[in-house]
Amino acid sequence: MRNISLALLITLLAPLAFSQSLPQPLNLMPMPSSVQMGAGQLVIDTSFSVGVRDRADSQLQPILELFLNNLRRQTAMPPQDMKITDATQARLVVHAEHGRKAVQELGEDESYSLQITPAGAKLDAATPLGVMRGLQTFLQLVHTSADGFAVPAVTIQDKPRFPWRGLMIDVGRHFIPLDVLKRNLDGMAAVKLNVFHWHLSENQGFRVESKRYPKLQEMGSDGLYYTQSEVRDLIAYARARGIRVVPEFDMPGHSTAWFVGYPELASGPGPYEIERKWGVFDPAMDPTEERTYKFLDKFIGEMTALFPDKYFHIGGDEVNGKQWDANPKIQAFKQAHGFKSNADLQAYFNKRVQRIVSKHGKIMIGWDEVLRPDLPKEIVIQSWRGQASLAEAAKQGFRGLLSYGYYLNLMWPAWQHYAVDPMGDAAASLNPEDSQRILGGEACMWSEYVSPETIDSRIWPRMAAIAERLWSGQEVKDVSSMYARMQAVSGWLEWLGLTHNTSYDPMLRRIAGSDDVSALRTLADVVESVKDYQREEVATVQATSLAPLNRLVDAVRPESMAARRFAGLIDALLAGKADYVDRQEAQSLLLLWSGNASSLQSLEAQSFLLKEVVPLSRNLSKVADVGLQALGYFESGKRPPESWAAEQLAMLQEAQQQQAQLLLMIVPSVKKLVEASAGLPAQK
Amino acid sequence: MRNISLALLITLLAPLAFSQSLPQPLNLMPMPSSVQMGAGQLVIDTSFSVGVRDRADSQLQPILELFLNNLRRQTAMPPQDMKITDATQARLVVHAEHGRKAVQELGEDESYSLQITPAGAKLDAATPLGVMRGLQTFLQLVHTSADGFAVPAVTIQDKPRFPWRGLMIDVGRHFIPLDVLKRNLDGMAAVKLNVFHWHLSENQGFRVESKRYPKLQEMGSDGLYYTQSEVRDLIAYARARGIRVVPEFDMPGHSTAWFVGYPELASGPGPYEIERKWGVFDPAMDPTEERTYKFLDKFIGEMTALFPDKYFHIGGDEVNGKQWDANPKIQAFKQAHGFKSNADLQAYFNKRVQRIVSKHGKIMIGWDEVLRPDLPKEIVIQSWRGQASLAEAAKQGFRGLLSYGYYLNLMWPAWQHYAVDPMGDAAASLNPEDSQRILGGEACMWSEYVSPETIDSRIWPRMAAIAERLWSGQEVKDVSSMYARMQAVSGWLEWLGLTHNTSYDPMLRRIAGSDDVSALRTLADVVESVKDYQREEVATVQATSLAPLNRLVDAVRPESMAARRFAGLIDALLAGKADYVDRQEAQSLLLLWSGNASSLQSLEAQSFLLKEVVPLSRNLSKVADVGLQALGYFESGKRPPESWAAEQLAMLQEAQQQQAQLLLMIVPSVKKLVEASAGLPAQK
Repeated sequence: MRNISLALLITLLAPLAFSQSLPQPLNLMPMPSSVQMGAGQLVIDTSFSVGVRDRADSQLQPILELFLNNLRRQTAMPPQDMKITDATQARLVVHAEHGRKAVQELGEDESYSLQITPAGAKLDAATPLGVMRGLQTFLQLVHTSADGFAVPAVTIQDKPRFPWRGLMIDVGRHFIPLDVLKRNLDGMAAVKLNVFHWHLSENQGFRVESKRYPKLQEMGSDGLYYTQSEVRDLIAYARARGIRVVPEFDMPGHSTAWFVGYPELASGPGPYEIERKWGVFDPAMDPTEERTYKFLDKFIGEMTALFPDKYFHIGGDEVNGKQWDANPKIQAFKQAHGFKSNADLQAYFNKRVQRIVSKHGKIMIGWDEVLRPDLPKEIVIQSWRGQASLAEAAKQGFRGLLSYGYYLNLMWPAWQHYAVDPMGDAAASLNPEDSQRILGGEACMWSEYVSPETIDSRIWPRMAAIAERLWSGQEVKDVSSMYARMQAVSGWLEWLGLTHNTSYDPMLRRIAGSDDVSALRTLADVVESVKDYQREEVATVQATSLAPLNRLVDAVRPESMAARRFAGLIDALLAGKADYVDRQEAQSLLLLWSGNASSLQSLEAQSFLLKEVVPLSRNLSKVADVGLQALGYFESGKRPPESWAAEQLAMLQEAQQQQAQLLLMIVPSVKKLVEASAGLPAQK
Repeated sequence: MRNISLALLITLLAPLAFSQSLPQPLNLMPMPSSVQMGAGQLVIDTSFSVGVRDRADSQLQPILELFLNNLRRQTAMPPQDMKITDATQARLVVHAEHGRKAVQELGEDESYSLQITPAGAKLDAATPLGVMRGLQTFLQLVHTSADGFAVPAVTIQDKPRFPWRGLMIDVGRHFIPLDVLKRNLDGMAAVKLNVFHWHLSENQGFRVESKRYPKLQEMGSDGLYYTQSEVRDLIAYARARGIRVVPEFDMPGHSTAWFVGYPELASGPGPYEIERKWGVFDPAMDPTEERTYKFLDKFIGEMTALFPDKYFHIGGDEVNGKQWDANPKIQAFKQAHGFKSNADLQAYFNKRVQRIVSKHGKIMIGWDEVLRPDLPKEIVIQSWRGQASLAEAAKQGFRGLLSYGYYLNLMWPAWQHYAVDPMGDAAASLNPEDSQRILGGEACMWSEYVSPETIDSRIWPRMAAIAERLWSGQEVKDVSSMYARMQAVSGWLEWLGLTHNTSYDPMLRRIAGSDDVSALRTLADVVESVKDYQREEVATVQATSLAPLNRLVDAVRPESMAARRFAGLIDALLAGKADYVDRQEAQSLLLLWSGNASSLQSLEAQSFLLKEVVPLSRNLSKVADVGLQALGYFESGKRPPESWAAEQLAMLQEAQQQQAQLLLMIVPSVKKLVEASAGLPAQK
């Protein structure tokens, strides 16, 4: 058995290097702590079997069944094949030292060791949770080899860097049905995430059945909510995958939907309607009325009984204070209590709510804004503001989670999320004791612009990059290895029913109003949505929760892999590292784009959804034409006429502006090419 | 409003003709009885609404909700959009004369008339069933127009040609989970089918929970069966879509799985095991023992209570008689009763079973073999043998269904199924009274070679062609119109979650052992499985129910649209009707195929699943090379050397043989090209 250091392994994982040295790359994501390659492989055929060492652990049985189901799906083996057998006969023998906690706990041991030889495999873990994580690694190792399906001989030692690795889904702004959540839980388990943070109430919708306060869902959800039995079903589904479910009920702001049924909770006079627009709104709970806390006590009592997790999220973000300012009674209350600001008033509210949460046996979590030194140190701060905010909390003795940098709705490329580290920036200088308080992080899928049809493609595959950041060592940061593995994992996730890839063509067909979407796909492949909060900022029509999400900006991927590929080719070209095939590919792409506007033209007249992208389509062809000219100059070594570069750069500058909330992602590369062909220094 | 005759309409539906005369083709399938185009269109936006005329019919409410869900999926409108409103305000007003029967009946009125103007739409039907059919037509009319989603102004009168239009799915040989069946029911409803024939027991598995005889499922199913509550759930799901559910329990043959738990039912000594191989097997129920009928009486009593449909299928096919011949007691019984053959003995069995079925209030159906003049005329014959058999039954006074010609597992191209008519061949000469007894037909999905992963692609989109044959007039038979519409419907069916298109790439990735499947897809796109029962006949390894269905033959489509397209180009070329673009396309395709073997080569060494297709891949390139040469000769008008054509034709003959149970579908077209280039007369 050869030892390979982690650094070397990562280098090897770059697909080119790997394909020469090993039969196939190890597309593991998140990357395990230690991987030692062995010789040969273990073949997986219909006779493959799994067994439990020492004792038939009833907790492991369903885990193994789930594992075999996944393995069968990957290999197309019928349900009668591949059995759970006696450990003495099994090809994969699984062992867990202890059982699981009745309710999964923060910090429960997830480590495992996996040893695979051509004769068999052994998976050892302290707990069934570790077994789950190890089995996911095993599934990622399965590949089609010359001798059958197989896993390579390998020894892996693995454990997570952070104990809290989550995904938050906002089901308030857009309701996301249970089956969509379930397939995303499958995806989460596949990349070893362990917390599903369920953002259940918003101005735009209250999404859980309350038996005590039924007007919450009856009047606040448009009928789009989860029954308590569905909630229990989802929690069980998550538990079977080693995932905790942390509910969030956002208060005192973000709560318009509560007030439709219970206007007496609000700080301003009703009646209220479910909010349809996006943004921060005035309605907030009245923190000065005892009836508010009585209501919350009963409500939180009901919900803490429904959600078994130890942690309970109260939101606490973005109260604009306008209702409080406008209410004389609240003003008087502030004065009477000596509160100088609305922040003081909210802190009072938070303290009251914290006592209620604590009374019901739970630990409170809130967003940055809840942080006040006088709250008990057990609460957890979830930071959307950044590591500085998190470090500040840690120094004060509070535990924290990073979500800043992990907002999937901001449509960043994967590398940008990947570069954000919970221990980075201001958190890097924390002392060891304080840094222990950084529990991990959570990606956030805020849902202004996602629907059940599009949500998978906004979460996946980028979520896998964040999952690796939270599981793997800080030194795992090679971006091209990450992209290569993320690409492989993306295809692999399709076995779980995730629709991030398969939803693309149907959406394009709808937009095109035609079965022939080749030209539209060519365009869609090289554009991305505007980033951060620009979709709002550049909107010509105000978006609402009732607007269909069927435009090109909804269909295109958050990150254009075609543009990334093209950028790589141009960079190689300019660095003198492109070979003939690279140059041919760059030229072919430019030729394809150059002719694309005319290919798309025949469809434009027949679809209202295409109208807004006509300028974008024309720009693609114009930019590609310039790219072809620049390539010609560059390759021939001839200098273009003086004015040419300036004119083209001006045009490219123009083409880089958003059109229909979309960005043409090949522009920067063509710019570089123009600059190089004209002998100009490359600009930022 | 212009009147367009049906014949003219069909001509117009050829996509080229249509795109010039109308904004978009009417991709209706099955084609309605009468279509009159109007002027303009009705725009469908978020404010679209549906209402019921005259009264709020509680039966129509769930139908409209299902319709709106489908419409929302097609247009990506949120669930809060598009409401059921008062008829005075609705854009689409629906009306049914009568209610539905408590249990859907054969022959219940399915006719409807649909009138769409730019101001609104009206759907009138005799029954809620007709409303369902009309709403499906409406959904097929929805398209992306320049002014929004829209349906064209049109007046449609429609009713089915046959009252029994079914799909049989064999869940015995491979178990098909409930969710897969449900999405196929959605597909069935979309093309106006009205019978789901559920083939529930086979030698390879007994698939329904019996509470009275639990060893049936406990020992006969590998744990793969439907609970009674699941059965009821599926029946309700089907009913909501206007589909009857006819259960089949095949007897006295095809019943090994019954005997695992109840060997005393068999004609030979046990013990029995679930059959794993395919074919016709010896075990058969003992028709001479009274305990057999007592068992069946109780069993059928239980099942007829579970399945509300009036019809009950007893199979009755393919008894090889070997167990009967080997059993002296049964021989003695035959002699004592004067039975000359095993067919006589089976007829006795059928008569006994028919009385049981009838006693429990149901009408018996059986396959051809059950036909005997002395059975009551109420029974129905399902013919796998052909129209002659059906006509014979009709003349004797029996009603019948055609399944011959509609076996989806034989992997025929759609045109071949489309050409089969229940009233064709021997049935064409029936007198009017007898021909009334031909109730329609059923497509059959026998499941030796389908799994939950592949079944959708074996049923769809070809099922739509058969559905049209059974719904539309006999004169609707333009094959190119059918293909154009089937292609459109195929994409449209994806909104229902059918995976016939989306399962393709993941399966190819599994085979390739790589994310880059472009070369494999190029090959897969031009091959088809061998036809009829050849998969069995040419197998090198005996197939079983435990074998993974993950080979290229499982991934490829039953019909190669790429080869069909290429054949069209070559035919046009040889007929002197190809333009420059056609010729370019033919040449590009040949060039692509010519280079494909070398593209695929890099993957071959790393996948055991690719090994068997290497010769096929090489043949594709060889055949394409010959095609390119022939094209060169043909285009230049130069004659090839004397021996050239003979040599190439010999090679092509060879290349036309199956390899790995796959056929290279471009060979016939290249053959034509070679013959033409050499000035030879085209051969069959």
